[in-house]
This record gives sequence, structure tokens and C-alpha cells, in this order.
Amino acid sequence: MAQIEKSNHNSDQREAGRLQVLDVIRAAGTIARIDIAKETGFSPATVTVITSQLLESGLIEEITPEPAADAKPSTRRGRPRVSLRLRGAAHLIAGIKVAHNSVSVLILDFEGSEVVSHDMPMPEPRMATPYFCETLKRAVSQACAKGGFALSDLSGIGVAMAGLVDAKRNFVYWSSSLTDRNVNLGAHLDRVLPCPVFIDNDANLVAKAEHLFGEGRKVDDFIVVTIEHGVGMGIVIGGEIYRGERGCGAEFGHTKVHLDGALCQCGQRGCLEAYVGNYALLREANIMDREMPLADIGMLFKRAEAGDAMARSIFERAGRMFAMGLANIINIFDPKLIVLAGEQLSFDYLYADAVLEAMHQSSIQVDAPLPEVRVHAWGDQMWAKGAAAYAIEKVSALTVREVPVDA
Amino acid sequence: MAQIEKSNHNSDQREAGRLQVLDVIRAAGTIARIDIAKETGFSPATVTVITSQLLESGLIEEITPEPAADAKPSTRRGRPRVSLRLRGAAHLIAGIKVAHNSVSVLILDFEGSEVVSHDMPMPEPRMATPYFCETLKRAVSQACAKGGFALSDLSGIGVAMAGLVDAKRNFVYWSSSLTDRNVNLGAHLDRVLPCPVFIDNDANLVAKAEHLFGEGRKVDDFIVVTIEHGVGMGIVIGGEIYRGERGCGAEFGHTKVHLDGALCQCGQRGCLEAYVGNYALLREANIMDREMPLADIGMLFKRAEAGDAMARSIFERAGRMFAMGLANIINIFDPKLIVLAGEQLSFDYLYADAVLEAMHQSSIQVDAPLPEVRVHAWGDQMWAKGAAAYAIEKVSALTVREVPVDA
Repeated sequence: MAQIEKSNHNSDQREAGRLQVLDVIRAAGTIARIDIAKETGFSPATVTVITSQLLESGLIEEITPEPAADAKPSTRRGRPRVSLRLRGAAHLIAGIKVAHNSVSVLILDFEGSEVVSHDMPMPEPRMATPYFCETLKRAVSQACAKGGFALSDLSGIGVAMAGLVDAKRNFVYWSSSLTDRNVNLGAHLDRVLPCPVFIDNDANLVAKAEHLFGEGRKVDDFIVVTIEHGVGMGIVIGGEIYRGERGCGAEFGHTKVHLDGALCQCGQRGCLEAYVGNYALLREANIMDREMPLADIGMLFKRAEAGDAMARSIFERAGRMFAMGLANIINIFDPKLIVLAGEQLSFDYLYADAVLEAMHQSSIQVDAPLPEVRVHAWGDQMWAKGAAAYAIEKVSALTVREVPVDA
Repeated sequence: MAQIEKSNHNSDQREAGRLQVLDVIRAAGTIARIDIAKETGFSPATVTVITSQLLESGLIEEITPEPAADAKPSTRRGRPRVSLRLRGAAHLIAGIKVAHNSVSVLILDFEGSEVVSHDMPMPEPRMATPYFCETLKRAVSQACAKGGFALSDLSGIGVAMAGLVDAKRNFVYWSSSLTDRNVNLGAHLDRVLPCPVFIDNDANLVAKAEHLFGEGRKVDDFIVVTIEHGVGMGIVIGGEIYRGERGCGAEFGHTKVHLDGALCQCGQRGCLEAYVGNYALLREANIMDREMPLADIGMLFKRAEAGDAMARSIFERAGRMFAMGLANIINIFDPKLIVLAGEQLSFDYLYADAVLEAMHQSSIQVDAPLPEVRVHAWGDQMWAKGAAAYAIEKVSALTVREVPVDA
């Protein structure tokens, strides 16, 4: 028994070592073995062993730089310095963002370069599980066809969806895209898709994308607040997504900002989302003006810009409530950076100067700079990129496990 | 330059390895070298090198168990199995908890066993920095005298105090114990005390104590909410105290639960503390009854127990506000465990069944169990124990750095 545990321990260590080397190569782009040893702290001998295993498995490749045309023979003495890089062709990996109106698919190679980008309209915003799975399959099949390859050429698919997702188990407690609750969505998708699927909450995957490609590069502790139909949050601590025990953390939109307050879509009262979500604003507008359409936040925003006092007061309160919510995040996490990300940032009421000023005033006051707030407007393709990055990470872990020791 | 970086890297790794071995020995109590290798994943040869360095430096010692009296000679063949344990006498370390009325000092040996416990009344709840430093010195000197040794025999002192503390820098932005703001308290204490001092927010150190000795043993992700004069929070993520960027995180008591709400001691409006702190309850009581003394929460509690409607309504609202705050913590962290800790838990209005029920109702509802809530009433000595544990950790790190490589 002790022996088995020890051997698992050793193989875990071997996998961790390979993943660490892969990560260093990914971060560097191209890098020589000696520099991998410096970055990882591994001995040069260990790096030689690991990199030959990774070369053998096709995950990385060697590149020998051409000597410069004008280089003198004397500078070309000895063996040329060989660098390593990821082999893009090793894997094709898809990321999917499920939104209310559309499914966005992005296919990346193993290096993270974009191969295909595709958007498909959602037939309905909310579906039963089997129909939902078929819809995702259709979207990703269309993307593959666009790229001239088969669905079976994919090594993994990441799925970003709104709702309460236990990423560890690929399990969806609740999502605004599904009519069913408590769905073992991973198992359902496994039946219709030919490769491993990795599901997570969409705000978590935005945080992943911000960390790898966006405003959170080289920042290991930060918070992303997403503003879309609802309000989401992704927490990065120590370079990792923080998910909580059951996968239900980071529910910023459902933190309560008023005891027994306004009714939220979730059925509870006083949630932040019930004060700042589109539906909340339109609900208020409708009280003052029964003719106000219940779906057009753009029209309400235009009215506010034109000076309509009712419309202004609605946005103003939403901004103050949002500022209070952000201040609470600062008072709890004291992060270095907060990224406000989303598609609907064209309506600036949630990150206007007045909102950020109110946020500052409700934050703990010390004689040290408050967290930086960066606003990052992006579309569904960027969310899909986070999903693909998550899948690349997972596929890397699966692949290094299969690399033989004596490669 | 690259060479220097590499050598720092190696010595960091050496220190990390030594600390890891020390941690394993501390957790086990007594443990054989071969089991240290299993626990750490280090090779037996590495463990032999590290443990001989630690033996040489006096941080650990060998124990050879006596063979059982009835053991046959045949079972005693070969070398007896030697185990290792921490050498308690290696260091004496003090922990100090600064409260409104008293300074509690606990002196532990390096193994964590209690050597001396001492309480001294605080001359004033709030002092200027030099007087505060002298007060701490007096308290810890008295504790040393009680144990029959000198202040200079201590290897380190941990200090737990309320307020905004940047533990990394031993810097106090603000504390209810100090009349000054922005105090480089570490430097001040260094001038009057003969050993290194390590300062942290008291709720962080309660979390440390819960993790090492209390309800959070073997739980790597949990939240501690402290209920004393104010409301504090300690966050443990991945087995480590989460402190935030400037050391101002986990300010649960100053998260806002009402836009433009009740005035808080901190000068802002709508803080949770302004609804659940003793002063907040007494402020309300005083409105209904001008004779109500503004400092006696016990009397107000007795009135509520006796059925006084005004008093009951005050506690009832405080409980509901507190439940809402706890639900927000669950919705953000989704922790496995919440520990409610503090001295004033004899007044149960903040953790009555009705409060926990209200907390459940405001938490994200999924078909998975909600976090466990444990109530842990303890006195100032336990806070001091957290401070001492923190100092033991820091002293260990300083000591392993000084152990020579060729020991």
C-alpha cells in the first residue's frame, strides 16, 4: 500500500515536472534548455530527460536558428544553440462561449494561435439538455468544417456558460441556458462529442483569458467583474482560478446589498443584480412609463443621455449600488487589480467616473493606493478564447500523463 | 547576473526544502526519515542531508525508542529505528494579543508546548506609539519573569492587534489600540525588544490558530469570522492566510450592507459593523430609552431575554443583518467551513438558529450541502496562541536560512 502511494506520488511529480516545463516553454515562446533549467530550478539533466519525453510525444519541437547571413565563421563555432517551442500542430482545441443569442466557437492550435472563429445563432436562449448538447455539437462541427477538418480532429473542447457550474465534475447546478437543473452536462456532451469536454462558469473563463491574454497578464492576484446580462465575477489567486468548495463561489451578482430588498431573477431579495441588471433597470423604467419596452436598455440609456430625469435617476442609483458592491470586493480581497470586462460596456453607467469615485469612498481608507481598475470591453470571441485556454491546460495535463517514461 | 539569480534560486529551494521537512516533522510529532521522504516526495538521500543540517543546528533531535520490555532479542536485530522530532528547547517564542482591556501573552517552546501564560491589564485602551511599545514590553517581560527567564531568551514575538495591518511590512495603517495612524510599528518595537517581532491583524492570527490547533485543522480552505467589539475575518486559502495586496483584505465588518446606511465608527455609512457591533445596538437602545447605559450590552441582552420587545427587535435585526453578511461570504467564497470565533459568544444573537437559517436562505441554492458553520468560543489566550504560532513559523524560516549548507 505504502509502495503504491509512493509510486503514485512519483508519477504525480513526473507529470507536474512535465507540465511545469510546458508552462515555461508556453510563457517564453521559444527557449533553450539551459534557460528552462534556470526558470524551473530543475537540474540540466532533469530538463534533458523531460524535454526529450515531450519531443518524443510531439508536444514540443526543436528550432535551430539560422546563423545571420553576415555572421563570420568564428561566431558559428561549436554546436548551434537549439531552442524549444510548443508544436502548434500537436493539438487542435476548441473553446465555446454560450450566450443568450449565439454560440461562439474559437479553435486554437496547441500554441494558442487562432485557427478558426465561428458564430452560430442560438435557436432558443434556454433549452432542454439533449437539444442543448446537439446545438453545441452543431456549432463546433460548423467551425471545424470552416477550417477544413473533422470534429474528430479536436483534442478537447472548453465550454463557458453562465450559471452555477462545478468545473471539477463538469456538473451544472443551474444555468440560464438550460431548462433542467442539476445536469451532469459533461456526461451528456461526452455522448455526442468525440473528445474530452471541460465546462466552467463563463466569468471564471474570462478571468482565465484576462490572465493569459488580457489585462491580468503577469498579475497573479486579481478580480474580474463581468457585466453582461447579469453580473459575474472571476477570482484569480496565486495565478489560479479560485472556484470554492462546490464550484459556487464568486457569485458577486447575488451578494445581498439590501436586507429584504428588490426581487431578483434568482428568487431571492436584495441581490446586487436586482439593482444593476438590465431587467432591474427596465422594471423601474416601466413603473414610470408603461410604454417603455421591457427589453430595450439602449433606449433607456439614450433617454438618460438626453437628460430625462427619470432615466438618469435609474442609472444613477444602479451606479451607486454597483460602486458599493465593488467596494465590498475591495474590502474583502484588497486586490492589486480589478478588471471590469464585458460586451455591454458601451453603456458606461456602471463604470463612469462617478461610480469609481463612489467605490473609492466606500473602500477601507489607508494611506496606500487603492486597487487599479481597468475597463476591458470585448466580445464573445474573447470569452471563447478563455474556454479554449482552459481546455489547452486540461489537454496538456492529460497528454503529459500519457507520455511514456522511457520516451 | 544570471549566475547570481540562479544561486538565489538554489538557496531559496534549499530553505524551502528545510521548511517543508520541519513542517512534516511538526505535523507528525515524531517521524522516521523514511516517512519524511514519503511525505515530502524528496529522495531518502536528500532527507538525510536536510535532517543532518537541522540536527546540527539544534532545531530537531533524534529519539531512539526503548525496545519493549518483553521484546525478544530476535525482534531487536539490526539498528533500532530512529525517529526525529522538534527540539522544544531550540526556541522560546511569545505571542501577544492586544485587546481593549488587557494584553495577553503566551510563551511557547519550539514544539508549541505552553511554557508561560500571562495577562496584564491595559493602562488605556488607546495609546500613542512609544507608550504602546513600552506596554507590550512590560507585559512580555512580566511573562518571562513568571517563567524564570530573561526577555533576551526569546527568539521571536508575534503580535495580534485589531485594525489594518500590513503584515509583510510590520506596518499598522490604523488600529483601535493606537492613537497614531500609519505607524511603522515593527521598527518601533525593534528598538525596545531584543528579538524579531511579527505583527498581524488579530483575525488573521485567529485563523492561523484555528488552522493549527482549532476547528480548521486539516481544512485548507475556510473562513473565520471573529465577533468581539467589532466584526473581523480571517481567510485561509490553500492552507495559507490570504492577506491581500496591501494587507487590508478580509475587512468583513466594513463591507456595506445598506447604501447610505447607519454611520459606522470608521466614518463611512452602511458598514455591517454599524448594524451588529455592540455600539450600534446600544445606540439604538438609547433612542428608545435614554436611561439605557451606552456601554452595557449585557443588560440589553438580559432585557431581550426577559421579553422586552424593543430589545428583542434590536437583536433580531442585528442577527438578520449578520446573516446577510455571512451569506455574502458564502456566495463569494463558497467555503467548506465557516468558523464563528470570539469571546463574546455568550450573547448568542449572532449565531442563533434563526440567524443560520436566514444565512442559508440568502445563500446561493444548489443541490449540494451548504458550508458547515462551527461556533468556537475562546478567550484572548487562544488569540495569543495564533500570534505565537505565526512567530514560530517566521522564526523557523529565519533559522533555516542560517543553517550552514555543510552542516
